[in-house]
Amino acid sequence: MPKVAWIMGSDSDLPALTKGIKLLKDFGVEVEVAVISAHRTPDVAVAFATSARDEGFEVIIAAAGKAAHLAGVMAAYTTLPVIGIPMKSSALEGLDALLSTIQMPPGVPVAAVAIDGAENAAILAVQILAVKYDELADKLKEYKGNMAKGVMAKDAKVKQEVSNL
Amino acid sequence: MPKVAWIMGSDSDLPALTKGIKLLKDFGVEVEVAVISAHRTPDVAVAFATSARDEGFEVIIAAAGKAAHLAGVMAAYTTLPVIGIPMKSSALEGLDALLSTIQMPPGVPVAAVAIDGAENAAILAVQILAVKYDELADKLKEYKGNMAKGVMAKDAKVKQEVSNL
Amino acid sequence: MPKVAWIMGSDSDLPALTKGIKLLKDFGVEVEVAVISAHRTPDVAVAFATSARDEGFEVIIAAAGKAAHLAGVMAAYTTLPVIGIPMKSSALEGLDALLSTIQMPPGVPVAAVAIDGAENAAILAVQILAVKYDELADKLKEYKGNMAKGVMAKDAKVKQEVSNL
Amino acid sequence: MPKVAWIMGSDSDLPALTKGIKLLKDFGVEVEVAVISAHRTPDVAVAFATSARDEGFEVIIAAAGKAAHLAGVMAAYTTLPVIGIPMKSSALEGLDALLSTIQMPPGVPVAAVAIDGAENAAILAVQILAVKYDELADKLKEYKGNMAKGVMAKDAKVKQEVSNL
Amino acid sequence: MPKVAWIMGSDSDLPALTKGIKLLKDFGVEVEVAVISAHRTPDVAVAFATSARDEGFEVIIAAAGKAAHLAGVMAAYTTLPVIGIPMKSSALEGLDALLSTIQMPPGVPVAAVAIDGAENAAILAVQILAVKYDELADKLKEYKGNMAKGVMAKDAKVKQEVSNL
Amino acid sequence: MPKVAWIMGSDSDLPALTKGIKLLKDFGVEVEVAVISAHRTPDVAVAFATSARDEGFEVIIAAAGKAAHLAGVMAAYTTLPVIGIPMKSSALEGLDALLSTIQMPPGVPVAAVAIDGAENAAILAVQILAVKYDELADKLKEYKGNMAKGVMAKDAKVKQEVSNL
Amino acid sequence: MPKVAWIMGSDSDLPALTKGIKLLKDFGVEVEVAVISAHRTPDVAVAFATSARDEGFEVIIAAAGKAAHLAGVMAAYTTLPVIGIPMKSSALEGLDALLSTIQMPPGVPVAAVAIDGAENAAILAVQILAVKYDELADKLKEYKGNMAKGVMAKDAKVKQEVSNL
Amino acid sequence: MPKVAWIMGSDSDLPALTKGIKLLKDFGVEVEVAVISAHRTPDVAVAFATSARDEGFEVIIAAAGKAAHLAGVMAAYTTLPVIGIPMKSSALEGLDALLSTIQMPPGVPVAAVAIDGAENAAILAVQILAVKYDELADKLKEYKGNMAKGVMAKDAKVKQEVSNL
Repeated sequence: MPKVAWIMGSDSDLPALTKGIKLLKDFGVEVEVAVISAHRTPDVAVAFATSARDEGFEVIIAAAGKAAHLAGVMAAYTTLPVIGIPMKSSALEGLDALLSTIQMPPGVPVAAVAIDGAENAAILAVQILAVKYDELADKLKEYKGNMAKGVMAKDAKVKQEVSNL
Repeated sequence: MPKVAWIMGSDSDLPALTKGIKLLKDFGVEVEVAVISAHRTPDVAVAFATSARDEGFEVIIAAAGKAAHLAGVMAAYTTLPVIGIPMKSSALEGLDALLSTIQMPPGVPVAAVAIDGAENAAILAVQILAVKYDELADKLKEYKGNMAKGVMAKDAKVKQEVSNL
Repeated sequence: MPKVAWIMGSDSDLPALTKGIKLLKDFGVEVEVAVISAHRTPDVAVAFATSARDEGFEVIIAAAGKAAHLAGVMAAYTTLPVIGIPMKSSALEGLDALLSTIQMPPGVPVAAVAIDGAENAAILAVQILAVKYDELADKLKEYKGNMAKGVMAKDAKVKQEVSNL
Repeated sequence: MPKVAWIMGSDSDLPALTKGIKLLKDFGVEVEVAVISAHRTPDVAVAFATSARDEGFEVIIAAAGKAAHLAGVMAAYTTLPVIGIPMKSSALEGLDALLSTIQMPPGVPVAAVAIDGAENAAILAVQILAVKYDELADKLKEYKGNMAKGVMAKDAKVKQEVSNL
Repeated sequence: MPKVAWIMGSDSDLPALTKGIKLLKDFGVEVEVAVISAHRTPDVAVAFATSARDEGFEVIIAAAGKAAHLAGVMAAYTTLPVIGIPMKSSALEGLDALLSTIQMPPGVPVAAVAIDGAENAAILAVQILAVKYDELADKLKEYKGNMAKGVMAKDAKVKQEVSNL
Repeated sequence: MPKVAWIMGSDSDLPALTKGIKLLKDFGVEVEVAVISAHRTPDVAVAFATSARDEGFEVIIAAAGKAAHLAGVMAAYTTLPVIGIPMKSSALEGLDALLSTIQMPPGVPVAAVAIDGAENAAILAVQILAVKYDELADKLKEYKGNMAKGVMAKDAKVKQEVSNL
Repeated sequence: MPKVAWIMGSDSDLPALTKGIKLLKDFGVEVEVAVISAHRTPDVAVAFATSARDEGFEVIIAAAGKAAHLAGVMAAYTTLPVIGIPMKSSALEGLDALLSTIQMPPGVPVAAVAIDGAENAAILAVQILAVKYDELADKLKEYKGNMAKGVMAKDAKVKQEVSNL
Repeated sequence: MPKVAWIMGSDSDLPALTKGIKLLKDFGVEVEVAVISAHRTPDVAVAFATSARDEGFEVIIAAAGKAAHLAGVMAAYTTLPVIGIPMKSSALEGLDALLSTIQMPPGVPVAAVAIDGAENAAILAVQILAVKYDELADKLKEYKGNMAKGVMAKDAKVKQEVSNL
């Protein structure tokens, strides 16, 4: 069973992440969650990143706001793919976290997703895992199909509403 | 042998991408390059994305500037992981491409890297492939070690220069 | 009777668009509404754009938020004029959608209007149609006159209020 | 023969516009060019906008930089569709002109295109005219085809270059 | 008695302006208020600006949001000093209005004040009038003194509050 | 003869200001220039502002870059109108100076003009002085007329150039 | 006992600062608080900064919003280290205050912390004082340890919550 | 003799830092320079920060560009004051580095200075050291005096130049 680490810089990030965590579980991926601060528990962060591959994790998702360094610290200490979620937790609406997450130096990438983009982090993790686990590719296809159906259902609803204008 | 598709929206993007393409080849990854425009050759883009998995690609890298839709189109039509490189090709220094690449809607992620971040796209692709191909994980470890050595060599050089101030 | 397609990326955009849709109808323009996602129902988007001219549409209005690609996809597949409305649906207050909508590459324009600018999309569509339909030009002139009267009425009201300060 | 007015706020804008003006002529559209400043020759601007429809113009293109009001003044005085090109002529790289052009109030739209987007203004004008003039729709289709061919030629060139890396 | 025109683009701007209008009256300045839209009642705007000097106005204050052209139109048609207030009425928090107001072309200045800065517009108008009317200079000195006293009173209050922490 | 103080935070600002200083002299205004740093010669700044009115100055123009406090210091110590020019002297293209200049607190306004807007500062100063000095109003009218003629001459030139395309 | 001056531009800033002021006191640092406006009580500001060292202050913390000049004025008149807190008190979410605080000219630094970053100002002040006062270094170490424990407690809590999803 | 560590993320930062390093030495402060990458030599960074106090450093200056984490890593592992210099080394002109440096979470401050602000980092370090070393306070006073003289000399030069206009 594929295993993903989903860490966050603060427990206050959890509500914005829950949907993504559940989504990952729905794909049959094992998820281990942790609150780790790049700046307040840096030793924990380093230890986590250093041992992540040996612990059986195959992808790391790191969510952090403001001067969001958490994903970057992970990327510095592991060769696993690291997905960064910039959180909208500051006065600047997440623009600071977005730039802190994405503008990594050559050789140490973070795969950045949208501000507060927990669902996209989950799906990206599954897409990465699907390179190895064929059954996940099938599930992704099904998920894509369901998304399309969802949009079509909303299309019908909106058409109805507009006809009543 | 793992295979990556590296597409770009314009041939004028090539010089900024060359270093990344070479880096990917250095890791022993097969790279197929193409110029595909989401807006000028949309059919090519759709066909490419739709058949990418069957063609044996395991990761898609898409580089585009301005209203950078190329990575997004790929992500819409494939379940492969898609890495987006926002190119600094506009008056706005790449900020437009960065936001167009990263702010994808829930369910359809793009893994965005830094503006003009071709090397990071390459390394991220290798990290993704290394989930499946163990030998790439070893090479990444070696690459990380070499990067560290490079920094240390520059450290020595700078210390020398400063002592002469 | 002139016919306009008004598509939106999400049903959650509808409340911000209703006033514009009604306005278009008030001008005697036939409006067909649809929820189409460039990323979740891309095939629907391509099919819609490809057949739009043959279906009798003369203008397409596309509203989308975040990495707003919907208008761009339309523009890629049709030679009809495409009006893009950037929606304020993200952490970044619509700046991402604005840049994703307007910064189109040479040869594939989108006519971008203000963030959440549904009424302006409607009037711009009527202005475009009025190039062909003379009666719409007359209605636009009347509409302009009514707007002026509305401002003048507010002028009188404000003058009254200020005199009471 | 369809007729378009292409005005600009300063003669220094001309070099960035030439390609677009030529493109419009290539489509067989009559183009009348003028330097009109919303702030330095406001009477000329008002007179031009007021009489534009009677003069036989069917679309107005207005290019201006900084606090770019030119397109807005046109839109205030005519019911013709007005296309605005924000010029990159300020310290702020055109962001000021972009916002000044696009953020028009309800009821008075400007169709904004990309910063320095003269070619897109030209094509958008042709798309608008093609609502009335069928032959322009055919030419647009051909233009779209040629663009695609151009991209494909560049694709071949880049593939060659990369194979030599 | 010195006379100032205070115009606004929309009646919805009035609440944010009231304090400034009152302040101006407190200085003994006659204030005439009007709702004038640069885009919806452009003729009114032109007529107002053109005749402003002859009507006895000595300063014009113009408040507008989004693509805020109102102050610019005034400046185009009068040689009176024009003060522009960018209103925070858009998705972009007034940044669009700020740039549209301040980035005027050489030769046609607007004196821009802070976003929603009605009080500053009032004081700036008084400062300008005080160049001619000596008694206003005295009142400004008194106003400055009162402001200082107000800050000092708050200083005492805060010191008390903090001592209780 | 009316007298204006034109101060700048650094001698490196002079080249961008020369045109404006000359323009002010052309209007027959006496101009006294000084390099004063709000942060490096704060006592000079305070002394200058405090005595400015008594020294016979009627307007102060202050140009500064980055965290541009110079105009603000002037405004704190004088009741004369203070015009602030944000200089484009930083990495951020003058955006920092623009916000530092314009976003003044209630009661202490600065009349901000465009980034590097020396000519506009000059004309605004003349407009302010013209409230008192009638002959300047006449000169402003003439200046406005000449500007219009200049634009018309460029209009003719551009029309000629375009006819040769 | 080490002594710090904590000044703020407005009493409305106090609620956002209280936590930081308390934190500083918890470290056994004497804190003197004052409301001083760089623009409304400039003489108080100058006097305060000029005498700060003689009054026994060793660090100055200055909090201000919008065109935040308060920290800059302090830095101009003292050689004590000055910490600047940009307050989120404007339409622009504190971006104006951030740039006004940090972009100081060469030779006159302000140590800028995050928007509304009162706690960080407090800790930075303690770190500076700890250069001289050894016991503060010990307390900082303990504080760092407690922060880590706090994060770990939250980690346990989040793990529990997620296991219940 | 007081001792400062001046680290930088890349040797390419050195030219922009040299002036600041020299300035620090001119104050009689011992400076040790190192190239340390938060992401490429993270172990070196951690070791450096952890032992910095014991090595006798009293202040750390850290310069880095893009997603500038270097100062943040230092701050995570030491209780010494850490000064961060955001470098202008990216497409975004240093805005990314500025936000990554300054927006630190509560409890772990970085003292941020201007983009490329090496001289300010040096002076801030001296101001911090002067809390302990009285002779540095005297030197700072002298430095401030010399700065003022420098501005006055430029004032004379500019006055001369302008008189020749």
